[in-house]
This record gives sequence, structure tokens and C-alpha cells, in this order.
Amino acid sequence: MRSAATGTSGNVTEKELSDLRELAMQLRVESVRCTEVAGSGHPTSSLSAADLMAVLLVRYLQYDFTDPGNPENDHLIFSKGHASPLLYAMLEAAGAISDDELATYRALGSRLEGHPTPWLPGVDVATGSLGQGLPIGVGLALTGKLLDRLPYRTWVLCGDSELAEGSMWEAFEHAGYEGLDKLTAIVDVNRLGQRGPTRYGWNTEEFVARIAAHGWHTIEIDGHDLEQIDHAYAEATAADKPAAILARTIKGAGVSEVADQEGKHGKPLKDTERAIAELGGDGKVTIEVRKPSYLAPPHQFGELQTYTPPEYSKGDDVATRTAFGEALVELARARPHVVGLDAELGDSTRMQYFGKEHPARFFQFYIAEQQMVAAAVGMQVRGWLPYLATFASFFSRAYDFIRMAAIGRANMCLVGSHAGVSIGADGPSQMGLEDLAALRAVHGSTVLHPCDANQTAALLGEMADREGIQYLRTLRGESPVIYESGDEFVIGGSRVLRASDDDQVTLLAAGVTVHEALAAADALENDGIATRVVDLYSIKPMDAFTVRQAAQDTGCLVTIEDHWPEGGLGDAVLDIVARDMPAMVLKLAVRDMPGSATPAEQLQSAGIDRTSIAAAVRSYMSERAVSG
Amino acid sequence: MRSAATGTSGNVTEKELSDLRELAMQLRVESVRCTEVAGSGHPTSSLSAADLMAVLLVRYLQYDFTDPGNPENDHLIFSKGHASPLLYAMLEAAGAISDDELATYRALGSRLEGHPTPWLPGVDVATGSLGQGLPIGVGLALTGKLLDRLPYRTWVLCGDSELAEGSMWEAFEHAGYEGLDKLTAIVDVNRLGQRGPTRYGWNTEEFVARIAAHGWHTIEIDGHDLEQIDHAYAEATAADKPAAILARTIKGAGVSEVADQEGKHGKPLKDTERAIAELGGDGKVTIEVRKPSYLAPPHQFGELQTYTPPEYSKGDDVATRTAFGEALVELARARPHVVGLDAELGDSTRMQYFGKEHPARFFQFYIAEQQMVAAAVGMQVRGWLPYLATFASFFSRAYDFIRMAAIGRANMCLVGSHAGVSIGADGPSQMGLEDLAALRAVHGSTVLHPCDANQTAALLGEMADREGIQYLRTLRGESPVIYESGDEFVIGGSRVLRASDDDQVTLLAAGVTVHEALAAADALENDGIATRVVDLYSIKPMDAFTVRQAAQDTGCLVTIEDHWPEGGLGDAVLDIVARDMPAMVLKLAVRDMPGSATPAEQLQSAGIDRTSIAAAVRSYMSERAVSG
Repeated sequence: MRSAATGTSGNVTEKELSDLRELAMQLRVESVRCTEVAGSGHPTSSLSAADLMAVLLVRYLQYDFTDPGNPENDHLIFSKGHASPLLYAMLEAAGAISDDELATYRALGSRLEGHPTPWLPGVDVATGSLGQGLPIGVGLALTGKLLDRLPYRTWVLCGDSELAEGSMWEAFEHAGYEGLDKLTAIVDVNRLGQRGPTRYGWNTEEFVARIAAHGWHTIEIDGHDLEQIDHAYAEATAADKPAAILARTIKGAGVSEVADQEGKHGKPLKDTERAIAELGGDGKVTIEVRKPSYLAPPHQFGELQTYTPPEYSKGDDVATRTAFGEALVELARARPHVVGLDAELGDSTRMQYFGKEHPARFFQFYIAEQQMVAAAVGMQVRGWLPYLATFASFFSRAYDFIRMAAIGRANMCLVGSHAGVSIGADGPSQMGLEDLAALRAVHGSTVLHPCDANQTAALLGEMADREGIQYLRTLRGESPVIYESGDEFVIGGSRVLRASDDDQVTLLAAGVTVHEALAAADALENDGIATRVVDLYSIKPMDAFTVRQAAQDTGCLVTIEDHWPEGGLGDAVLDIVARDMPAMVLKLAVRDMPGSATPAEQLQSAGIDRTSIAAAVRSYMSERAVSG
Repeated sequence: MRSAATGTSGNVTEKELSDLRELAMQLRVESVRCTEVAGSGHPTSSLSAADLMAVLLVRYLQYDFTDPGNPENDHLIFSKGHASPLLYAMLEAAGAISDDELATYRALGSRLEGHPTPWLPGVDVATGSLGQGLPIGVGLALTGKLLDRLPYRTWVLCGDSELAEGSMWEAFEHAGYEGLDKLTAIVDVNRLGQRGPTRYGWNTEEFVARIAAHGWHTIEIDGHDLEQIDHAYAEATAADKPAAILARTIKGAGVSEVADQEGKHGKPLKDTERAIAELGGDGKVTIEVRKPSYLAPPHQFGELQTYTPPEYSKGDDVATRTAFGEALVELARARPHVVGLDAELGDSTRMQYFGKEHPARFFQFYIAEQQMVAAAVGMQVRGWLPYLATFASFFSRAYDFIRMAAIGRANMCLVGSHAGVSIGADGPSQMGLEDLAALRAVHGSTVLHPCDANQTAALLGEMADREGIQYLRTLRGESPVIYESGDEFVIGGSRVLRASDDDQVTLLAAGVTVHEALAAADALENDGIATRVVDLYSIKPMDAFTVRQAAQDTGCLVTIEDHWPEGGLGDAVLDIVARDMPAMVLKLAVRDMPGSATPAEQLQSAGIDRTSIAAAVRSYMSERAVSG
């Protein structure tokens, strides 16, 4: 447990106050200076929170900067990521970065980016899209309480403007419900957003009423009164629930050129030297941040075991979502760091199988996809490997969180079920038809779309050993098992399902369209058109060699996808053949807005069923015969 | 104003109660029957809200089903869109659809889709992604209060599960703050979500505490007690703020096979006939819904005027975001139905210019992008044309709302500024690098990316006359004006900026890369490489004719985009040449994760600046010389 020295009583000596005051001024000076050197940045948003952070750094944060990997370290998240100058000034005061490095703020190649990214000791995640830091903090606090079972604290510096984001209220709700007493939100209520006053200005009672309703302990203070700040932290750490400190501050505090004025957001000061003089001039306070010292042993993951995927018999009908659910149960037996996250669709996505077998590693977020993804970001900071499932369509709700997770180089496995028109009668609101485009356009992402149960189970294991944002697209409907259990499927690979030396055309498919393509190839063979069929289950990265070989061999590639024409399988194939164009490419995809209908009717209406594929090929062959 | 008959006192006669009971049972019977015929759907979620809707339909809703376009009609939104059987049963009881049509529920070609879409009288928007109906309702109520200035009411039927979505809390917050007293949220607290119990079950006091904190009037009732329901509506309509009715109900109410049981979500009943018998058998109640009758005249839009775009002088440096802001001011003078929506970035996006000139049509949503897009959906229902601006990156926060708006065939113009690495030092969290991919993959969308101020101003006017989801991508940095004021730019067009009969290569660019491409072409000409340059400002739809012509003429297309390689300009070009491959395509795009740096350094690091473009072309030409 925490050493007795923590959670100080709130009694600060005059000397301590004076030192804190000096540190706070230094944090301000450094914030002002580094934004001037950079020629851009947010000094005024840093100035407002300097006192709050000075007290935290000296008296409450527990962090071993000589060992940032120490599992007992606290976590500090700047949800208001634009206050990065303040964060970097703190790191400098703590000796974690040098003066010289601080001067590289926002320069090409510097670790000190305009908004924080996790290249620095004490920075775990990327922020800069407002409303994300607190939900990520909820993920860390959940991990500390329920997975790591360590008493580290999570401190989140929030802006007042970002309290307008719904994701913040998902976070307040989830943390309050889960009683995350090691989580503290420090809200820098500086009254001014980017373009003018916030909705409630300094009326912190408005925030208090709302936040307290979600089960939090709330504290209102003057955010420039060091003793009030100290008392607030002491009270927050003593509370038996998450605590929010609503600190009334002045944007640009300490510098008369900008203090409490509109139109001063996100700009260096005009007269930096005068501002620094006003702040008391350069200081050289260095402090020793308290190191964590617990009696409890740190969490240790169990040993990795060999993953034994469930086995499915060829010819059986199994939905890939079901194979995912069953395989995840097995994967989690072999990988003790796998956790499962649900947004109240576990019965449909089959995440519920995991919940039943591994309840201690299962997390229910109800219908709050943003909080689910943010929590995953927090969990993976601590070495856990999150698998998150919802409908493919509903990851669009958390797209900004996925984008930011990629910027923070987070590792997580997203599993989107009910993709495409093949879901049938529920209609377009439930169909993931843009998921491949959206997830392909995430930096460093992996996008997989298996067509059978054994392939799904095999790929799930491959994902566990890979980094970055990974996306597995599964299907609602059953489809025949076409691969043997034990078949290997590597990410970046493909599977040639039919091929001959006489192939005149290649069908490139994934998921449900693989089965349609196989049936179409049968029909075309009866017409004397030898047809190659390739299962491109790995949409990103894609097996360029096999695609190019097929292009050279057959001169015609037909891509078939249960997805809009933009940004999916077809575009990925085109990207491969773009440079030398060894073949023409015909893209079959969903072009009209679907309504309700049976799965078979939907595939037919979209022109991606077996009959439509065969017809498209025949039409192409007769064109070629005429022109050739 | 409302006729005195509305906002009834809550005194219901025995006869009226008996009629209401009969209607409620009929709504249940029809819900059960149509899901049985369809073989899918959500009867239990419909049964719970039948009493609530029966009382609303008979005694409170004001809607002229003989004239769905009547501007005085109330609005009813099923935020819990899966209860569509109940909605359709209501329409049948009101005589708006026939028995026969009700039997087409979820069938191919039917207007009665699995989740509501706006093909039906009384249905204005698409729902089915939970958490969207209430924020859309906020948009309608805002419109009634501040734009139309008509006293129509907006009624939103919500589920209890969807209260977990942050977007609902953006809606509660915005409506409470704006005092939208004509908005009523009816929350069907049936205690069971899709996969099991909700977080708070029937503890409606938990919801009340939270919702009331956001400035709403709240009412807790037994949602099956017709008199309590009637009293609640009377109280809600009399309240001087938005009202939420928290109605405790039983999922599957009235049918013992499923009532209050887990595992009964989204499935037809097993024994429909028995259920119908238990519900009292088929009824044939038809009702006459009260028609609106106001004394106030309906809102009339002013006459359309000719749009006179602002003029910029060739050679001046102007940011396209600035041209957007200035042009929108002018457009709004000519088009009285244009409204402007901001999410607290108006100073950066330049939406603030509109706010200053047209304050009565300007709406501030603070940092709540989901609510902003949802409000736009509501506004366009009433004939207003919303222009919404935020950073290109932050539309990702509302991607699910944009997706759903397209399903509902909504018309709106999204304007995303600060796109791409060219923003410079703020870093990747602020750069829209996936926006083209995401917005291209929206059904029926238009995606535009101008490179100069006159082009921006011209395109803004074109957008005003077009339907669907439109996206205009603008830039932070200044760039030289290269077009004359008065030049015409059609959507689906392009502009050939350099061309000769000897062109050996074509550079295809948009936005900032147009200027880089022009400079690269100068350098290449010095090397004796004649280079065509095309400004592909219309990314969707794209000018296929000009692209194909360039492919045929030059044999080599180089696409250059300040965007990830996936799903953007390059993929759109590839889609055009896929079928006959008249040229090779070289895609230049942002491939590595940027950090902070100056705009010029960013473009160079990404390999999309003038030097990199010229180098890529030279490299290609020498390859071609060797191989050819």
C-alpha cells in the first residue's frame, strides 16, 4: 500500500509554499519560452494550469523517472493536450528531459511534439483530440483496480471546454459506476475556449452538479491558491470514489499581456521577455518526484502458452463471428494478457463467450463505444492486449479514438461483426459498409476479413503477436467451412482456391464473397471459362505477389466486396497493380443504398452474388472477344 | 399558438382509457404479427413502449397525415429505431399506411425497413444507431424555437440502454442550456438491453439525477399506467424546459412468453397466435390524429438571390479556409436557408465570420461534434441548409452520425479545415489525414478539395444546389490565388493547369499539392520533361474524362495528396483507370506518421513537396527509358 507520506494532510509550510510558488513560475516561464522558440503553441492554456501541476508534481505524483517502466508508477494524462508546454516544463523540472531538449519543442524530429505522444517518460498516450484523456484515464484506473490490482493513481488534467464532449460523460459515468477511487480529474476551468468564453465560464457549480450526479466526489477551488490546491489533492486521494477538482483559473495567468483575454489561444506571446520578467525571471528549480513505494508485489502476467484454436469440420456451416467468440476463449487461455471488451452486443458479436469463460478479464461498457476504445488504450499502456467487439458499423462511433490510438502507437484488436449487406433484413443502419475504408486509412493498421471458421480462429492467434491497430471483420450469417483445421494463415497472405494454367480471369474476394466467387467459378467453368479464385483475407497488408501473379496470368482481376466501392478490397488491389498495370480490374461492390431484404436478396441486389459475378465475367469476356 | 385542446389536463374518462387500452393492445398485436411475417425484428422492444405511444398518438401528437409536409406538424423520432414495428403499427392505426403495407415489413423493396428511414409520413430521419435520435431531436427543437419560430413539438422515444452513449449527454446538455421547452424525451426504461440487464435497471432515479443536472424537467412514471402516462405528457408539455419522462416498463409487456425475460431481444415470438390471443386478439381501431392548428403563420424562407462570391486577386496569398469563411457570409445573403454550425473552432475554421454577419442563423455547439452533426440533420428536415465546420480530423468524432445522415438522405455541407500535414507544427492529432477516405466512403457523398480562394468561393455556391452529404476540405496555410474571380468550377469537373501535345507525364493534385505540382512541373520542364498538371478539386465525383485523356496522352499518372495512401485522391484516380489501364499510376501520399515540423518540412518529409514530386517523376522516366 501507499507509504504514509502520501495523501499529505494538506498542511504546507511557508517554505514549501514558497518553493511551490517558485516552481509554478518556472513552469510558466518555460512554457512561454519554448512556445516562443517554436513560434507556435499554447502558452496561455499552460499558464492557467501551472499552479495545479506544480503542487501535483512536488507533493502527490509518484513516479520514478529513472525507471519509466516501473509498474508502480502513477499515470498522468494531459487530456488538454495543447498544454504540452506545461507538461514538458514539468518533465524538465523533474530532470526527465534536458533544457536543450525543451528548446526543440515542435521542431522536426523532436520528441516534444505540439501535442503529447508517448515517446517521453511520463507520457503514455497521445492526446490532442479533446475529450479523450479522461476516458483513457478511466481505462488505466480500471486496469489498476481490476487487472493489475496495484494502487497506482491516474491523474488527468482536463480543460473546461472539453466537458462539452459526450465522451467525457461516458467517462464520468463509467468511473462513477465502477467506483474508481484512484482516478482524479483536475479540471482547469479557465473560462475561455479557443474562440471565446465557454458555456459556463467560472460557474464551477454547473460542472459540479453534473459530475456529482454521475457518482463522483467533487471539489471546487481557486486553481491559483496553492494551499487550496494541496487540500484538494489530499481530499481527492482520500475519497472513496473518483474525484474531480474543479479549479477556477485564469487563462494566461501571470502574464498581463494575455491574462483572461479572448483571442489569445494558441499563439506565442508578443513580448516574451517582458512576460518572463513579470513571472520573476528564469528559475532553475529541479525537484525530485516522489518514487512509488508499495508493499504489494507488482502484477505479473502468467506464462504464454501455445494457442490451440478450436477446430471446425469442413462442410459444416459456422458463422465467422461464432468462430471468433470460440477462438477468443481459447486464445485467452494461452495468452494471459488478453482482455475482452463489450459494448452491450456480446450476444451478437459472440464476445459473450469470453465473458462467460474469463469473467475476470471481461469488461462491459454498455453502449459507449468511445469509452470502450479509450479504455482499451489505457489497458494496453499497462501491457494488456484488448480485443474489442461491436458491430462493424458502430466502430464508426469511435473513429476519432481509433485514429488517436494509432497516433499513440497503441496495440489493440478490433472485431467488427455484422459487416455488409449480408446481414439481411436489419437494414443499412446495422451494416458495416465503410469499415474497410475507415480502418485501412488508420496509420499502421492491419485489416483482416476471413471467410470461414478455421481461418478466423487461426487469424485471431496471428493478431495476438502483432502490433498496432488491428481489425478483424466478421459476419453474421453462417458459411461453409472450406479450410482444414490446422491450416496456417499468415497476415499479409492469401489463399488461391482455384487455379489452372488456362485461367482467363481471377476473382478476388474476402468474407462472404469468397463463397459467391467459388460458386461463380463453377458456373463459369461450365461455360468453358477457366477462373481463378483467390481468398484475399488479409486486406491490409495484402499479398501483392499473388495478386500480381494473377494479374499477369489472367489479365483480368474481378474484385468482389460486400462494402461500398470506395476504399475497400478493390482499392487495395488497385494499389498493388497501379504501377505496371498488368491487368484490367473490374470492381464489384455495393453501389446503391440497401433497404431490408434477406441476405441472399441483398447480395443479389448489390450485384455481388454468384449470379452477378458470373454475369459480369461473361460480359467482360464477350467485350474482350469483340475488341481482341 | 396551440389550440386550447392540447396539453390536456390529464383527466381521462373511463371510456377514453378503455379506448387507449384497446389501441395499445392493437399496437402490440401488429408489432408481434409483422415481425412474425418478416421472420425477424424486435417485438419485445415494441411491446414495452406500446402504452406510451398509444397515449401520445391519441392525445398529444399533432400531425396531419393527409399533409406530411405541413410545417406545423409535430415531429416524432424513434431514437430506439429497432422498435420500428411499433412505429409502423402506429402509422397503420393512424391510417397513414395500410394493413397490406404493414405486412411487407422488412421485405425487399418495402418502405418499412428494419429500422426507420424517412420514406414514410411521420418519419423524418433514419435511426437505428442508438444515441442519435435525441440529438437529432435537439436539432429539430432548436429549429422550431430559433429558426422556424413555430410551436411544433418534438417527441423522441428513447431506450434506456442508449443513455450510455455520450451523444445523449451532449443532447441533454445542449437542450437544457437552450431551454428547448418543446422537446420531450420519452425514455422506455424496460430494464433489459440486448445482451442482458442495463446498468441501472428500473432505478429511474439514477437517470433522473443525471438528466435533471443538465437542466431538464424530469418525470418518473409506470409506463404501463395510462393515466400516469397521460399526466406525464400534460406535465411535460406544460414545463418551461425540455422534459424527460422516465417510464418504467416491461420488455415484452403483455406476452407471458417473453415478458421481462433475458435473451428475448430482436427475435420474433415463438408462438405468435398465443401471444395475440393473450393480447386480446386482432383489433381494428383506427384513430384520427389531431391536426395542428396554430394561429401563428408558418415560417417562409425569403427569396433566393444570386450568389456573388467574394473576389480574390491572382497572386495574392489567401488560405482556403479564409475564402470559405468570407464566401459563406455572401452565400448566406443570397440563400436565406443557409445556417452555420460551429463546434468552438470558428476562429480557426473561419465559421466565425458567418457568426458575426448572420448571428440569427449561427449556432454554437461548443466541442460537441456529434451534437453538431445531429442538429444539422434536424435542421435540414425543416428545409434549412446547414454548413458545419470543424477541423477535418474532428469530423471523425461524428463519423457514425454522418454515416446515418446519408442513410436518411440528409442534405448538409461539412467543411473540414486544417487538413493534412501542411498544418505544420501542431502535429498529427490535428491533421485530417483520413478524411477523404472516410467521406468518400459515405453513400452519395460529394468530396471537394479546392486549392485557391476563388475556387473555394465558387465551389461553396455549387454545394448549395446539390443534395446529399457534401464535404469541402480547406487548408490552414495561405496559398497563392491562381484562378480568376468569376472562373466557373463545376462539381465533377477539373482544371488542366498545364498541358502540351508532348506531355510525358501527368501530375494529378488537389489542395496544397496543386501548388507543389506546378512548381515540380516547372523544374521538370527545365529537364526537358513536358508535364501536364491537373487540379482534381472534385474528388468525388471525379472528372473521369480528363483523367482518362491524361492517361492516354501521357501514359503515366502521378497522384499527389496530403492524406494517407488509402482511400483518397489516388484511389479515386485508380478507380477511373481500372477498367482499361491506359497508364501506370504512381501514388504519392503521406506514408509515415508525422510529428511536429514546419509546413514545408512536413510536405518534404512526406514526399509530396515539389522536390519529391520532381524526383519521383525523374526516377520513373529513367526506369521507363531503361525498360522501354
